Amino acid sequence: MDLVIRHGTLVTASDTVTADLGIRAGKIAQVGGALPKAKRELDAAGMLVMPGAIDVHTHMEMPFMGTSTADDFLTGTRAAAAGGVTCLIDFAIQPPQTSLLKTLEIWKQKAEGKATIDYSFHLALTHWDDTIPQQVKTLIELGFPSLKVFMAYKGALMLEDAGLLQLLQTSRELGALVMVHAENGDAIFTLQQQALARNETSPRYHALTRPRIAEGEATARAIALAEIAGAPLYVVHVSCQEAMDAIAAARRRKVPIYGESCPQYLGAISVDNYERPDFEGAKFVCSPPLREPDQAKQLWSGLAGNLLQVVSSDHCPFRMEQKRAGFNDFTLIPNGVPGIETLVPLVWTLGVEAGHISSNRFVDLISTRPARLFGLAPRKGSLTVGADADIMIFDPQREVTLHHTGLHQNLDYTPYEGFRVTGYPATTLSRGDIVWHEGEITAAAGRGELVQRKSFSGD
Amino acid sequence: MDLVIRHGTLVTASDTVTADLGIRAGKIAQVGGALPKAKRELDAAGMLVMPGAIDVHTHMEMPFMGTSTADDFLTGTRAAAAGGVTCLIDFAIQPPQTSLLKTLEIWKQKAEGKATIDYSFHLALTHWDDTIPQQVKTLIELGFPSLKVFMAYKGALMLEDAGLLQLLQTSRELGALVMVHAENGDAIFTLQQQALARNETSPRYHALTRPRIAEGEATARAIALAEIAGAPLYVVHVSCQEAMDAIAAARRRKVPIYGESCPQYLGAISVDNYERPDFEGAKFVCSPPLREPDQAKQLWSGLAGNLLQVVSSDHCPFRMEQKRAGFNDFTLIPNGVPGIETLVPLVWTLGVEAGHISSNRFVDLISTRPARLFGLAPRKGSLTVGADADIMIFDPQREVTLHHTGLHQNLDYTPYEGFRVTGYPATTLSRGDIVWHEGEITAAAGRGELVQRKSFSGD
Amino acid sequence: MDLVIRHGTLVTASDTVTADLGIRAGKIAQVGGALPKAKRELDAAGMLVMPGAIDVHTHMEMPFMGTSTADDFLTGTRAAAAGGVTCLIDFAIQPPQTSLLKTLEIWKQKAEGKATIDYSFHLALTHWDDTIPQQVKTLIELGFPSLKVFMAYKGALMLEDAGLLQLLQTSRELGALVMVHAENGDAIFTLQQQALARNETSPRYHALTRPRIAEGEATARAIALAEIAGAPLYVVHVSCQEAMDAIAAARRRKVPIYGESCPQYLGAISVDNYERPDFEGAKFVCSPPLREPDQAKQLWSGLAGNLLQVVSSDHCPFRMEQKRAGFNDFTLIPNGVPGIETLVPLVWTLGVEAGHISSNRFVDLISTRPARLFGLAPRKGSLTVGADADIMIFDPQREVTLHHTGLHQNLDYTPYEGFRVTGYPATTLSRGDIVWHEGEITAAAGRGELVQRKSFSGD
Amino acid sequence: MDLVIRHGTLVTASDTVTADLGIRAGKIAQVGGALPKAKRELDAAGMLVMPGAIDVHTHMEMPFMGTSTADDFLTGTRAAAAGGVTCLIDFAIQPPQTSLLKTLEIWKQKAEGKATIDYSFHLALTHWDDTIPQQVKTLIELGFPSLKVFMAYKGALMLEDAGLLQLLQTSRELGALVMVHAENGDAIFTLQQQALARNETSPRYHALTRPRIAEGEATARAIALAEIAGAPLYVVHVSCQEAMDAIAAARRRKVPIYGESCPQYLGAISVDNYERPDFEGAKFVCSPPLREPDQAKQLWSGLAGNLLQVVSSDHCPFRMEQKRAGFNDFTLIPNGVPGIETLVPLVWTLGVEAGHISSNRFVDLISTRPARLFGLAPRKGSLTVGADADIMIFDPQREVTLHHTGLHQNLDYTPYEGFRVTGYPATTLSRGDIVWHEGEITAAAGRGELVQRKSFSGD
Repeated sequence: MDLVIRHGTLVTASDTVTADLGIRAGKIAQVGGALPKAKRELDAAGMLVMPGAIDVHTHMEMPFMGTSTADDFLTGTRAAAAGGVTCLIDFAIQPPQTSLLKTLEIWKQKAEGKATIDYSFHLALTHWDDTIPQQVKTLIELGFPSLKVFMAYKGALMLEDAGLLQLLQTSRELGALVMVHAENGDAIFTLQQQALARNETSPRYHALTRPRIAEGEATARAIALAEIAGAPLYVVHVSCQEAMDAIAAARRRKVPIYGESCPQYLGAISVDNYERPDFEGAKFVCSPPLREPDQAKQLWSGLAGNLLQVVSSDHCPFRMEQKRAGFNDFTLIPNGVPGIETLVPLVWTLGVEAGHISSNRFVDLISTRPARLFGLAPRKGSLTVGADADIMIFDPQREVTLHHTGLHQNLDYTPYEGFRVTGYPATTLSRGDIVWHEGEITAAAGRGELVQRKSFSGD
Repeated sequence: MDLVIRHGTLVTASDTVTADLGIRAGKIAQVGGALPKAKRELDAAGMLVMPGAIDVHTHMEMPFMGTSTADDFLTGTRAAAAGGVTCLIDFAIQPPQTSLLKTLEIWKQKAEGKATIDYSFHLALTHWDDTIPQQVKTLIELGFPSLKVFMAYKGALMLEDAGLLQLLQTSRELGALVMVHAENGDAIFTLQQQALARNETSPRYHALTRPRIAEGEATARAIALAEIAGAPLYVVHVSCQEAMDAIAAARRRKVPIYGESCPQYLGAISVDNYERPDFEGAKFVCSPPLREPDQAKQLWSGLAGNLLQVVSSDHCPFRMEQKRAGFNDFTLIPNGVPGIETLVPLVWTLGVEAGHISSNRFVDLISTRPARLFGLAPRKGSLTVGADADIMIFDPQREVTLHHTGLHQNLDYTPYEGFRVTGYPATTLSRGDIVWHEGEITAAAGRGELVQRKSFSGD
Repeated sequence: MDLVIRHGTLVTASDTVTADLGIRAGKIAQVGGALPKAKRELDAAGMLVMPGAIDVHTHMEMPFMGTSTADDFLTGTRAAAAGGVTCLIDFAIQPPQTSLLKTLEIWKQKAEGKATIDYSFHLALTHWDDTIPQQVKTLIELGFPSLKVFMAYKGALMLEDAGLLQLLQTSRELGALVMVHAENGDAIFTLQQQALARNETSPRYHALTRPRIAEGEATARAIALAEIAGAPLYVVHVSCQEAMDAIAAARRRKVPIYGESCPQYLGAISVDNYERPDFEGAKFVCSPPLREPDQAKQLWSGLAGNLLQVVSSDHCPFRMEQKRAGFNDFTLIPNGVPGIETLVPLVWTLGVEAGHISSNRFVDLISTRPARLFGLAPRKGSLTVGADADIMIFDPQREVTLHHTGLHQNLDYTPYEGFRVTGYPATTLSRGDIVWHEGEITAAAGRGELVQRKSFSGD
Repeated sequence: MDLVIRHGTLVTASDTVTADLGIRAGKIAQVGGALPKAKRELDAAGMLVMPGAIDVHTHMEMPFMGTSTADDFLTGTRAAAAGGVTCLIDFAIQPPQTSLLKTLEIWKQKAEGKATIDYSFHLALTHWDDTIPQQVKTLIELGFPSLKVFMAYKGALMLEDAGLLQLLQTSRELGALVMVHAENGDAIFTLQQQALARNETSPRYHALTRPRIAEGEATARAIALAEIAGAPLYVVHVSCQEAMDAIAAARRRKVPIYGESCPQYLGAISVDNYERPDFEGAKFVCSPPLREPDQAKQLWSGLAGNLLQVVSSDHCPFRMEQKRAGFNDFTLIPNGVPGIETLVPLVWTLGVEAGHISSNRFVDLISTRPARLFGLAPRKGSLTVGADADIMIFDPQREVTLHHTGLHQNLDYTPYEGFRVTGYPATTLSRGDIVWHEGEITAAAGRGELVQRKSFSGD
């Protein structure tokens, strides 16, 4: 064995057991049994040994709203490793006049030579034309069986219902999974223009012009289109009860709808932060916006009860000088909050520590289920023999007060400043390599590999 | 008294009583008490004396899909009178590049000199611009406080969500009621194009490309926009459970949503008719399409339980030679079925005779509630003293087998051919004038008046 | 004419009209038209002329919890008249070992010679045996087509599900309407015993041992039994969302479920009152208990949207010395609040003034619909010619601050002490007789008549 | 190693992987890695290696309705082994006047010396008294942390709501899980008596007197009581949509409700079987009864979407001569169908083969989740190192037409006669011992052990 983890408590999506785990050639080679001394050994006594988190919603080096996200594939994946994330799927967003395949090439180049952990891409469609089905076919063959559509960002990324319906039909036929950002772009754009006309320009109006109803509506609409198409659908960053209601009703009818939420909606921060003085509210501007505190309980109910299956970060980082572009007009504040590094400790703290979910369900939500939905299983997302040794050794006792200075994201703030988490990744392994250990990132730029994914076949 | 109706059973939305009723100067002047012999007397023994029906959804002489509806305001209102309808509200639909006020003028001219009963117009918006709020204000002042939007008919009448939202906001502020045709135009257009590409051209594909989900979705979306705007909303021609579900959920949250259904959805005919050979299915092409037989029970549940408040005809007549335009392409069949003359006997037969609703609820649905919702009360819609003497004397025993030759609509067919109704209007009075009696229409062209309506103030 | 009401605005369940109204021989003889000067005339300018309220839920001179309600049929009906109530239906509750017919006789004697307005009885079953169907048949023939069952008060009035089911089956067959007090008696009894064992004896524990879930559960159970029996069902004193949910779901399935609420649940007072010091909380002890303030909005949603059809008073008055029986044990506080005199002004103020319902819906809820459901129509509940001249002339401008000293109930308190209502009955007529006018009760004891009611035939 | 399983595909609740598995001293000792040749080796090429099924709902040698179930712990557990079941939890049902602890002793003796696989007991309460909490405490300490209550079987096993509520409160406090048989016993008893009075005596009336509403009602009631108590609840043998609706609503409110269904409700057989001639319908008499064919889809929706978490057999076998006791009176037909031996192939065929669930979800439903809910994890229900080597080697290709002669249950029929399953257990291991292999049962009587279970701590 190249590496043996001793005395840890192995936690998977379904089981908890104390056993040693042996790694050879980057793979999990043995669980339990007699494991002879390896080249390297890690003592995980008192620790939880879990599959590394798989963050299926990130935006690295993404051009957006006149700027570009602050993390590239180097800084972003370093932060990921420090946060127990061992694989990410980033959004390759189609620029105007650019084919999906060309878009993919652009994003591949962003990652190449930089990524420190494994990665893949979802392709995000911003228009529909008749060449799309063939492109989707090619993408699936290449190992990219997931596509995203924005129902928001009118005039920019938004796709009309006709395009979404046709993409769903195409995906059903070919075996891809369509993801939607579900907010009614038309309504939001109208409310934004009206707010600005009333000289309502500060960050608080970001939330007021993106009401929960606009998210609930678009979620229900996307589901209706999926039902017409007979296609599965994955709803990203679900933030409120209204969207949950639509998902719950659909799943009750056995329509294959999946959903994710993100830590920013799960109880650490809430809509009140937009009221902060001195443009501080801008730090929290993301879409959907932060919601009322009572919404988090609804989301945990859905995550515990399997209405939602995934928690991702929606890591979309901008530095304060970038946010300042919207100082006089909230609609110009780049939308997004950072979160890849704090995903794991926040979900553990808000979910497991708070009693909403078990540690097994935690593993399911941040690793096993996203791996299955997005075609990474059985290579990723589990502790089974033969799987990639993408592992997080997690210290459930460790208490950390979050400060941006202690984090590795390329940011000058964190929205969770001062929030105390209980439980933190002590060590992260990527294909058997130690990439985070004793507070140090030990991952070389470019060691991360592009992972080919399988086509969609259920959860 | 000019006219006294003797010995009838007066049926209103809330009461049933046997009493004489006196009319003077076109108004109901006295109910009960001693009524001296009048110039003219009608014996209504064994009959029900009810407010005339108010049909709030008609399309007379409407240019549509390359042709024009087959009834004008003369033939259409004559048929109305023969069917117990004493007032109608027609849709004045904005042609391209035409202001709402200009549109109103066009429709006024269509009606003038022709209408045999009283009438008004809803204005139907087909685009949004910044002059609309001022035009709506003027329309309300002129007595036209209701506006319609099509969420279907992409590329023709369809309005985007942004326009609908702004109209709802405007209407809320000014006191109008917005009506929507709720079907997802984008989805339907896509399905239609796909069907045609597969050489699916016959009338049955009309129904298959307008699934119930597309109606349920658009209904939910319109309600969401109304909720964002804080505005009341009226959903026209509700045809299925999916739309009812959206309305029920909204009303439970105390959102002021109203809805109507139409006889074609209430049990006499169903989706099976599209399968008829020899292009016979075209007779039944209307939007939403006829639905599965089990949907009617859902709608009656809503009409009985007040989820829906109105039954209208959606009278939109085309002759068979007009329908034939779509012989090789179902999307070119003019959408619409006739129904103003059969509204009353069908709703009575399918509703009261079948045991779904009481005779009082019948009056509420076809007269009192539409009068209240659309600003015609207290002048129309009731048997109270001072109200217009718009009255139907209804024979609940009379059995009639419907044939198009026995009807007065300018049509060469009826979708209800051979359907047996129990209960039929024996006499119709418009402002005290007998306009239908003993099987004869006695209404002069042009005697109908344009009625000024009040702004919206609830139900 | 014996009496003419001039210049009033007549408000019925469906219409509003300004017209004079003539009364002869205790009946409404003419509405509108020329009315010659009568023996007596009332000027109702600025007033609303409405059918008198019909209170279908009262407890006069009822033995209960070791005492007897404080109003008998004299004081109670005098208070009714002063409050615009012109007819009531009281509960004749079967004592142990007593047949229903014998029970009826007992209650008839309580009322005879005392009642100042018309009245009838519901029979309340407290056990089931095989003679009941024949007794119910006789009761219906005698004009008493409504029976009540208590699912609460374990060990006293409570009937088991088997009895309720059989009564529903019997009623369906014979044409009666079953009413239920829906709270889970078993659960409440258990919670009460546990509270007392913990020495929790004060009035606040009354509410804590009767949770909303216990009402919602029993409501759903009664509905399930009605659905099994195929029988209509009327749920008395609905107080919360949980019960509304059950009713809404049933009505959506077209199960004929009806419901009433009462002023004590509609927003003037709430559960907080149980916290009052000095045993003051006992004044508010009724079952179901007062609820959280947010429940009232739910109930108004139901009353406006026709999930509920009636508001009654559940007048069940006890004087403070009677309440004091439970000073050391809240389970011994006689359950009930007074309310027959304040029913009309409270429902107007909380409903119409607050914008939840129209004045027509108000009339429907407190007069027309209860008359129809309980077989009093067309004799009672409307302003139609031929109906009993049971009329309230209502001053919508009059503001009154409620004090028990200003009321005529035989009580030393009112739970609404200090509550300001807008709108108050100025004059009450019972069969054409003035029974309340200018602040004076002018009704003679015993003038009230027992009204024979028709069997149940829908709403 | 004592035993190595080579070349199999290991399927757990979350993962699928091809790896060898080593067993030592009755435990799983190693997964993957180099496994030296063991004393015994099994070749599982082409086979699925899964945790053995855990059947948490059986009735062995149970006195019921005047007879006793036909399988004892010897024949029943032999059949279990042949069907891939490696652990069962049987119901020890309190006889009259017998304490729970005494009841436990009775059942222990039934099993001792007979059971061929491991087992435990749920205690079923048939009355409530004040000694119960202390008994429950003792039971939990002894390793029996689950208790069952019957809401059906009035006059026999049925417990009143007060008892159920108190048991829920007790269980919450002490850490037990309450299970309910949810049907309204009062309603069913009434309907049965009425049917018999109409001389409706054949098996078809079994279903007609146990309507789905009676199950939905009781399910909702049990949930309400659990919500009042703040306790988790497990609903046994859910058979219909009405019960699912109640569970779905509760889980949406984050009330910890769990549910199981059974193969007899999942699509192989349906209510039509009661119509079979010659008293053949009696074979299918179980409670709840078989339902309409459309209900199975609802249940699979719940099993796939996690509204239900378990499938058990409700094995309750009676031979035809026993069933014949109800030849003239369906209420005397012993209630129950056999099923422990066919549980695994039926759930696989109806669920996985039919596309409703994945093989991982299959493992979750029949092994992992019941193990967690009932305190058997981590010892049972998984393939983790250290767990009992309770394993089924399953041949997914094997097609078997079910005949009772091919089964090992002590029965002269199977309700699934002639039904073709795809997938069958080839080999069963209990703590490393081969108990079923190549069509032979090789388990010695009495080798099964009573397993001590942990108290309830969530799913």
